[in-house]
Amino acid sequence: MLKVGIVGCGMIGKEHAKRLQYKIQGVEVVAVCDVFEAGAKAASDLIGGVKIYTDADQLIADPDVDAVVVTTPGNFHKNPILSAIKAGKPVFTEKPLTTTAADCKEIVDAEMASGKHLVQVGFMRRYDRGYNQVRDLIKSGEFGKPMILKCTHRAEGVDASYTTEMAVTDTAIHEIDVLPWLIGEGEEWDEVQCLFPRQTKNAHEGLADPQVMIMKTKSGVVCILEVNVNCGFGYDINCEVVCEDGVINLPCPSFPVTRKNFEVATAIEKNWILRFIDSYDVELQDWVDNVAKGTTGGSSAWEGYVAALTADALVAAQKSGKIEKVVTGGTPDFYKK
Amino acid sequence: MLKVGIVGCGMIGKEHAKRLQYKIQGVEVVAVCDVFEAGAKAASDLIGGVKIYTDADQLIADPDVDAVVVTTPGNFHKNPILSAIKAGKPVFTEKPLTTTAADCKEIVDAEMASGKHLVQVGFMRRYDRGYNQVRDLIKSGEFGKPMILKCTHRAEGVDASYTTEMAVTDTAIHEIDVLPWLIGEGEEWDEVQCLFPRQTKNAHEGLADPQVMIMKTKSGVVCILEVNVNCGFGYDINCEVVCEDGVINLPCPSFPVTRKNFEVATAIEKNWILRFIDSYDVELQDWVDNVAKGTTGGSSAWEGYVAALTADALVAAQKSGKIEKVVTGGTPDFYKK
Amino acid sequence: MLKVGIVGCGMIGKEHAKRLQYKIQGVEVVAVCDVFEAGAKAASDLIGGVKIYTDADQLIADPDVDAVVVTTPGNFHKNPILSAIKAGKPVFTEKPLTTTAADCKEIVDAEMASGKHLVQVGFMRRYDRGYNQVRDLIKSGEFGKPMILKCTHRAEGVDASYTTEMAVTDTAIHEIDVLPWLIGEGEEWDEVQCLFPRQTKNAHEGLADPQVMIMKTKSGVVCILEVNVNCGFGYDINCEVVCEDGVINLPCPSFPVTRKNFEVATAIEKNWILRFIDSYDVELQDWVDNVAKGTTGGSSAWEGYVAALTADALVAAQKSGKIEKVVTGGTPDFYKK
Amino acid sequence: MLKVGIVGCGMIGKEHAKRLQYKIQGVEVVAVCDVFEAGAKAASDLIGGVKIYTDADQLIADPDVDAVVVTTPGNFHKNPILSAIKAGKPVFTEKPLTTTAADCKEIVDAEMASGKHLVQVGFMRRYDRGYNQVRDLIKSGEFGKPMILKCTHRAEGVDASYTTEMAVTDTAIHEIDVLPWLIGEGEEWDEVQCLFPRQTKNAHEGLADPQVMIMKTKSGVVCILEVNVNCGFGYDINCEVVCEDGVINLPCPSFPVTRKNFEVATAIEKNWILRFIDSYDVELQDWVDNVAKGTTGGSSAWEGYVAALTADALVAAQKSGKIEKVVTGGTPDFYKK
Repeated sequence: MLKVGIVGCGMIGKEHAKRLQYKIQGVEVVAVCDVFEAGAKAASDLIGGVKIYTDADQLIADPDVDAVVVTTPGNFHKNPILSAIKAGKPVFTEKPLTTTAADCKEIVDAEMASGKHLVQVGFMRRYDRGYNQVRDLIKSGEFGKPMILKCTHRAEGVDASYTTEMAVTDTAIHEIDVLPWLIGEGEEWDEVQCLFPRQTKNAHEGLADPQVMIMKTKSGVVCILEVNVNCGFGYDINCEVVCEDGVINLPCPSFPVTRKNFEVATAIEKNWILRFIDSYDVELQDWVDNVAKGTTGGSSAWEGYVAALTADALVAAQKSGKIEKVVTGGTPDFYKK
Repeated sequence: MLKVGIVGCGMIGKEHAKRLQYKIQGVEVVAVCDVFEAGAKAASDLIGGVKIYTDADQLIADPDVDAVVVTTPGNFHKNPILSAIKAGKPVFTEKPLTTTAADCKEIVDAEMASGKHLVQVGFMRRYDRGYNQVRDLIKSGEFGKPMILKCTHRAEGVDASYTTEMAVTDTAIHEIDVLPWLIGEGEEWDEVQCLFPRQTKNAHEGLADPQVMIMKTKSGVVCILEVNVNCGFGYDINCEVVCEDGVINLPCPSFPVTRKNFEVATAIEKNWILRFIDSYDVELQDWVDNVAKGTTGGSSAWEGYVAALTADALVAAQKSGKIEKVVTGGTPDFYKK
Repeated sequence: MLKVGIVGCGMIGKEHAKRLQYKIQGVEVVAVCDVFEAGAKAASDLIGGVKIYTDADQLIADPDVDAVVVTTPGNFHKNPILSAIKAGKPVFTEKPLTTTAADCKEIVDAEMASGKHLVQVGFMRRYDRGYNQVRDLIKSGEFGKPMILKCTHRAEGVDASYTTEMAVTDTAIHEIDVLPWLIGEGEEWDEVQCLFPRQTKNAHEGLADPQVMIMKTKSGVVCILEVNVNCGFGYDINCEVVCEDGVINLPCPSFPVTRKNFEVATAIEKNWILRFIDSYDVELQDWVDNVAKGTTGGSSAWEGYVAALTADALVAAQKSGKIEKVVTGGTPDFYKK
Repeated sequence: MLKVGIVGCGMIGKEHAKRLQYKIQGVEVVAVCDVFEAGAKAASDLIGGVKIYTDADQLIADPDVDAVVVTTPGNFHKNPILSAIKAGKPVFTEKPLTTTAADCKEIVDAEMASGKHLVQVGFMRRYDRGYNQVRDLIKSGEFGKPMILKCTHRAEGVDASYTTEMAVTDTAIHEIDVLPWLIGEGEEWDEVQCLFPRQTKNAHEGLADPQVMIMKTKSGVVCILEVNVNCGFGYDINCEVVCEDGVINLPCPSFPVTRKNFEVATAIEKNWILRFIDSYDVELQDWVDNVAKGTTGGSSAWEGYVAALTADALVAAQKSGKIEKVVTGGTPDFYKK
């Protein structure tokens, strides 16, 4: 039984606490931490009462804690991850790894220095059944090599706090992580570009929406990603993989087909929560299982770092209107799979 | 150039007049007839002015008329068809052949006595692209033999003049004709049954709706037909053919797929006119081409007679609640294909 | 923590043992029983070692056992269920309740005499996401009342031990249970009929396949069920609900859409295991949760009894070729919901 | 009855001759011309025997010829079009208008100088039912303004004579013409870019395939066009219009849905001929009807010229790897609609 401490007791922290305590096998939450003691108390109450900390380092140092889950806001990820590495304890962090490439690099360096694979970044799409079905079809070789990816990331709407940059750092970040994994072959992003088509009347002032992001991998696979977060009609994730010998489309969620009002129709999800909720269960179970075997799964710290570099390049491309390079310096041997 | 006279200048008569005059190749309308002279005049004016008759026999006797199209109400089909046979002139009649099996039999006997194939009945579904695609797939043998047919005949709604019997004689009559042709192999209906499920609140008083008609062919193919003429959501024709090695579904009409209001949707036709309008062109062109070659196509007088017998059996089944036999006495050699 | 004993350690017994021990929350398997001690031992080993019995009554009497799961062959369900009722312990039994209506009735009578709801029958489709989505749409009232159900139960093929009767007792039994629940309103089957269309070349000698079963509820909803267990193309469960104001189709499982070889295609499941495997988890979790609250969920003993009566009527209809009545005598107050 | 002369008796010339003579109403072919007399003779024979010319100018000067159809190879379009304009006779030319922008400009200038609208260019997609359905939906306003177009132009394979430039001039040219018409609002292309993703193993040496062309209109609508002419799986034309309030997809051709071999599938067209064959009929009928009214329809000479300019910019972009401008100088009043 893996004993886990959770750092960060906001919404996602509380949800992961319940998930780990009541749905995932082979794990027990023994401690929670939040700088706001009331938040930590509330989380503790949800899961039957566990130890409460307001200092992450104390939780991490607790000998009862075998492994750490970090669910603080992204800009507070760095310290607890570094502390966990220092303590030699496995750590699962919600995405993004951190909010700057420099901080990510610090974590990567620390993990390599430790000599052990300890960090997993919570990009949950790698655990979605549909993406895995597509990946298996690509891997089967029946469709030849992938050449073009066409993706949409559409949401009904966003609130006024959502900025043009967040179209990259909060939204496209999922595709940035999942697509190289999807096509396999050790792919890495090479260059990126950002187009601003005619803008929607439905976006709030100051927000550029929709955007078309073009990303090319080192082997030449071109990804064209529509980010469209005020589409008005629902949460609509699509991914088409154009291969040499055929085309594969990511399945949509399963809903009844209805006939009514002169239309044959199928529902579109209202929001992301329903679309990927099952993936969280699979993801955390996989993490627990991997930790039990002394390994990691999902996205590594290196992949979290490359995602941050790619996001930086895309943000630069939003401003320059030009093609921007993603320079990673090459995957260290430590992270090669 | 085939010279045609049209008997019956109501809505469908006028439409066929325009179709033959302006869309179909190798044919010219030279005369029209209606018991109401004003109706004949109106039809004549629509097509550039042609001879006008109020007596069908006079039109049929006109030496300028090579062939006859009958578009009177169904209960007035018999006489002009018999006159055309007597005159040895090819005749295309809108469905049904006539409204009673006895009258149909009289026509069949007259045509056989004449020794020439002169009569074609206007069941236009045999000319629909979709039904022909399904028929070709069945014929290909790739799916094995057909075993079960599942059909729907749905309409948005019907007016108060529509009766429970008309569910057979006006609606199911299309499936009665087209299905044996669809599955081929010289099939004939053998026995029929009619079920009345829980009735819709949307039907007018006195109308049984929906109905489920079960028809079995001599070789054991079972057809299950839903007649549902107050469905509220459009004109919706479906046909699934369950074969030994696979299943084939009739295609729906082609409409854009849209995303809006949390739904992925495709339109359903509002009414039958759009669904089968193209088939009329193909049907009448085929008739003209066949007449030019001295033959007939589409549904024969015998098939029109068998359709009437089958409809009679279904109406009997509506009343008896039992399985009723369709007794044709076997296809005469004259009509074997 | 609910302590469970499992009676019957065949394939499904072992699977449920692992499921209860490792996937379901709030439950622990403490004992297993099989008349073959080796089978019980193997099951025990799979779940970390628990008490082993070869006599079901001893397991049921064990004070460490709070509740019982029966996974013996169907014809051995009766005794352990009656023992559990006698001991006042909740019992979950795989479907069918028992293999004869008389035995089912004995269980119903014993449960009523006990005064407590203790029995749940494992019809897992009630826990399938798709059926629940359809049920919710019906319940919403947006589609009006259901009038016709069109179902298919297709399997790639069956082995030589599968008989014509099993098309009812092993296959249609799922629709017999799930459909009244699906349409709600306290529906019960009223009369049934069985048609044998032209038979497939793919069935083994002596097996009637396909069959079309027609079942009517007391309120007149007509269900038309195609049982087609040598279809050759996969496991294909469909259900269309024709309502007064629209039509609802059960969703198919979600697979990528591919373009290859001049076709746009989506996979069909190879067999039932993948189609409903998730439902088992939901079902057993629901049972555990209900037991914790002192109630039952899913199918009751009464519903298991009615399913057996309906199956008997369908088997009679296979032989008579006629419409047969399902006579239940009316739902006892004890089982009214 | 419009009397037409056809210049160019190759494959498409012969097909249009038959179409005009036997399918289109209100028109008669009275003369055909080909530099190879045998070709002209063969075409004449196909349509019942008409006058034969080997000099296009003589055909155009023939007082029996009211209007001209040009079906020579594209590089021989200029002279007969200019002659027809000079003679004041309406002229329908197959696409492209001519093969260079300079020649197109000469035609535009000549037509404007003549003061009459005489030229129609044969881009047949404007007459496809599906594109018109999409256009009507956009025009309805229900989806808001179009922002992004995602198109595919896929073909099973091309022969060795197909070059990288032809991906623009022969293939993308259809989208170049049809898309501004589709979105309406007097749109014109503004800038273009061309990407070369990882290349398919299925293309012949020297051919760049697939290509992704990015085209932006003056109002900012971004079109992303995949040209993929060795896809191996058929002729596959798609077009998705992302609008402010919803998304519209061009319908695919209608084929039966089949279940076989563990797949639900629908056919993809083998080649372009079937996909757009109906459009030719509608297009030429529309031309004849317009000529009868003294007007033109479809694509104008100006639109043919702009298509040539856009193609030139795309070919330049193929070579430069940069964004290239399309400079038209603005639509002359003569061509404003």
